[in-house]
Amino acid sequence: MHMTDKKFVFKRIRGAIHQQDAGALAGIFDEYPSADMADVIEHLEPDERFFIFSVLPAEAAGEVLKEIESPVQKQILAGLDNQLVSVIITQLDADDAADILGNLSEERAEDILEMSGPDVSRELEKLLQYGKETAGGIMDLEYVAIPETSTVGEVIDVIREKKHQVKNLYHVWVLDHLDRLSGVVSLKDLLTEALGRKITDIMNPEVISVPAGQDQEEVARLFKKHDLVNMPVVDDGGLLLGRITHDDIIDVIEKEVDEDLSLMTGAMGHEIAEESFLKISRARLPWLITGVAGGIVAAVVINQFETTLEEIIALSFFLPVIMGMGGNTGTQAATIVVRGMATGDVSLVNIRKRLWLEMKVAFINGIACGGLLGLIVGWWLSDYALGSIVALAGVLVVINSGFTGSAVPFVLNKCGIDPALATGPFITTLNDILGLLIYLGLVTLFLGSTI
Amino acid sequence: MHMTDKKFVFKRIRGAIHQQDAGALAGIFDEYPSADMADVIEHLEPDERFFIFSVLPAEAAGEVLKEIESPVQKQILAGLDNQLVSVIITQLDADDAADILGNLSEERAEDILEMSGPDVSRELEKLLQYGKETAGGIMDLEYVAIPETSTVGEVIDVIREKKHQVKNLYHVWVLDHLDRLSGVVSLKDLLTEALGRKITDIMNPEVISVPAGQDQEEVARLFKKHDLVNMPVVDDGGLLLGRITHDDIIDVIEKEVDEDLSLMTGAMGHEIAEESFLKISRARLPWLITGVAGGIVAAVVINQFETTLEEIIALSFFLPVIMGMGGNTGTQAATIVVRGMATGDVSLVNIRKRLWLEMKVAFINGIACGGLLGLIVGWWLSDYALGSIVALAGVLVVINSGFTGSAVPFVLNKCGIDPALATGPFITTLNDILGLLIYLGLVTLFLGSTI
Repeated sequence: MHMTDKKFVFKRIRGAIHQQDAGALAGIFDEYPSADMADVIEHLEPDERFFIFSVLPAEAAGEVLKEIESPVQKQILAGLDNQLVSVIITQLDADDAADILGNLSEERAEDILEMSGPDVSRELEKLLQYGKETAGGIMDLEYVAIPETSTVGEVIDVIREKKHQVKNLYHVWVLDHLDRLSGVVSLKDLLTEALGRKITDIMNPEVISVPAGQDQEEVARLFKKHDLVNMPVVDDGGLLLGRITHDDIIDVIEKEVDEDLSLMTGAMGHEIAEESFLKISRARLPWLITGVAGGIVAAVVINQFETTLEEIIALSFFLPVIMGMGGNTGTQAATIVVRGMATGDVSLVNIRKRLWLEMKVAFINGIACGGLLGLIVGWWLSDYALGSIVALAGVLVVINSGFTGSAVPFVLNKCGIDPALATGPFITTLNDILGLLIYLGLVTLFLGSTI
Repeated sequence: MHMTDKKFVFKRIRGAIHQQDAGALAGIFDEYPSADMADVIEHLEPDERFFIFSVLPAEAAGEVLKEIESPVQKQILAGLDNQLVSVIITQLDADDAADILGNLSEERAEDILEMSGPDVSRELEKLLQYGKETAGGIMDLEYVAIPETSTVGEVIDVIREKKHQVKNLYHVWVLDHLDRLSGVVSLKDLLTEALGRKITDIMNPEVISVPAGQDQEEVARLFKKHDLVNMPVVDDGGLLLGRITHDDIIDVIEKEVDEDLSLMTGAMGHEIAEESFLKISRARLPWLITGVAGGIVAAVVINQFETTLEEIIALSFFLPVIMGMGGNTGTQAATIVVRGMATGDVSLVNIRKRLWLEMKVAFINGIACGGLLGLIVGWWLSDYALGSIVALAGVLVVINSGFTGSAVPFVLNKCGIDPALATGPFITTLNDILGLLIYLGLVTLFLGSTI
């Protein structure tokens, strides 16, 4: 939907709400894709959202609710009673329902589960037992699985039966006599083979699957590597548990990017839909306070060199540029390594090669930046000897930051910590302080030797 | 493939290369998925890579070559003669072949096109005419399209014929009597409907398609919004031109993230596979030099306040922390807005709402950070009046950065510039300088009034 259409729909919805016209509202929701309607709802006021969900038919309400960003979804759910939520989630696929319940308190989720029928709650409980960021947490229960003894014709009968249950069906999975996953058949093959053919003759026994506990980032890597459109999830014994589809993987990729960004900047990845400024503020503040604390440590370090600065006050003018050089270099090196780890392009095989490359880059860039700064300082203070010292300091600062920036992600990864943390405030602060020590230390040594 | 397997394969390949054993090499490449082999090749030395591509059968060579990251791919292609490249790309799907040719100079690509047969070069020329980042640039030519007059049985016959040509087939597109796209049928529907049914009875006429010139980021947004697995590309008259598949879209999403990161940090997104340190250095240097230039402007600004700093030299100790506060706040606000624009969560509808929210967040965080800094400065200098002034400066610096950080992406977007630039050095530098002016200006006013 284009921006202009969205504005038009927005106005129509507002109109229907203000006239309390439930029929007109349902009509509008029928007309447009639920993903678009979710966007529009995110731009409405809380009481307008509440009105919509209190009058919309349960199926339409569910389809839209699942598309709404988590902070707004939570706010809407808080205003609906358990009975209504139970009716709405019963209309959804199990995995979407589980996602919505996962946004509620455990207690409330249990109450709502009890109100739903036994079929629904059994499926949901199956899904809710897995961690949110694992293969089990993102899988759905809609798939077609058939025994190895089937013929093509029998499989087609099964598909015909499940036609309306399983929406995006591209492959059928084959189970052996112990119900373990043993092969995969594409719908294309089913369509083009004779009805009497045995499934074992046409199936591909090399089916790529993941255990339910596998981290979602690793699952995404497998999808990308093999250009998959869906993938079966199995338990430790090889029993088929569920299915992950390509659209789940796109969500995972975007979430992982958000997570990395949030570690890089201290801003929550999903906060764009957050409406409480206190929540946003609380999320961002620790990063800022860390920065202030680092800055205070930097002030203490500078204080040690007070006599040097008193001698030549202009040296203090260049504190920010020295720190900036170190910070930028470190961020560049760390971002590339962290991103390479996230996409799987950096493996642990070539740490030494990577570090050596970064050292060479830092050497060149250090000479360029340090040289430029040294020239300016030399000209400014009419003291090219001091300028050369500042240039040397610049080179060392850049090399130091290039090294820490590229090495720390590897160290964090080895320790089982998310390497994206290396692009955050800790490394920046560390580089700031090391940079100050190099700059002020070298200059002090130089001034001491010339007095 | 696990890391340990990869190391094992790595050793086997090295062994085969050193024994010049082409048969053993081909055997290893037969054994593992080409995406994994591409990873291994990226870790080999240039002459080892060259040996592999000079002895590997053309089909295996093509499948691996297309998976190799662009900088390494270029290095390999530079070592192969045109005849060999032509044989290799003839084995590939048209879109993969076009991607490889796109990595060569125009002249060399034309020479290679001429050596390929007329069928291959006609298809390739069709693809090469579209911009790399458009729907036409990422589409392939493998699809099944059928006339509206077909029956289910006739469509299945067409699929049987094209079975080996079209690899990932999940939908069939329907064309009207003028060959314009008029509907879509899923393989699931074909499988479960009677052979004699008319395709117009079961097709979905509301097929989501894009024009060939559409930007790939917009295409990705449509895929995500509608959970698509593939999408037809049409010309202005509605004629079907090609197909975009879900794996192309995952590539687009990752490339856009890389692009944003590279605008944020000045490091090339794809540089992880780059091996020339001069190229990496050249890519990163402009960003660093901009930072140095900004730092020099900051030094000039500080210089204006030399008498203030001479009076209380300790005020210079806090220059880095003031600049850090502004920089961090601006980056947080800009990152969230830029990311929201990339994922489509921020639309132009709610600029005012967003800015107001950011102002409230900045106000709270400014009071927290500014207050903390003011207390420390007050205690350090035993002058709580001066501390209060520094606190006020801190609040204003954070509010200013929060505003520029969140407003500039909108302004850039309006001007048709990639908003990710707002997270780069220009805004940081701007905020640094404004922050210094606020801090030193306020302190100078205060000292002037107390003397």
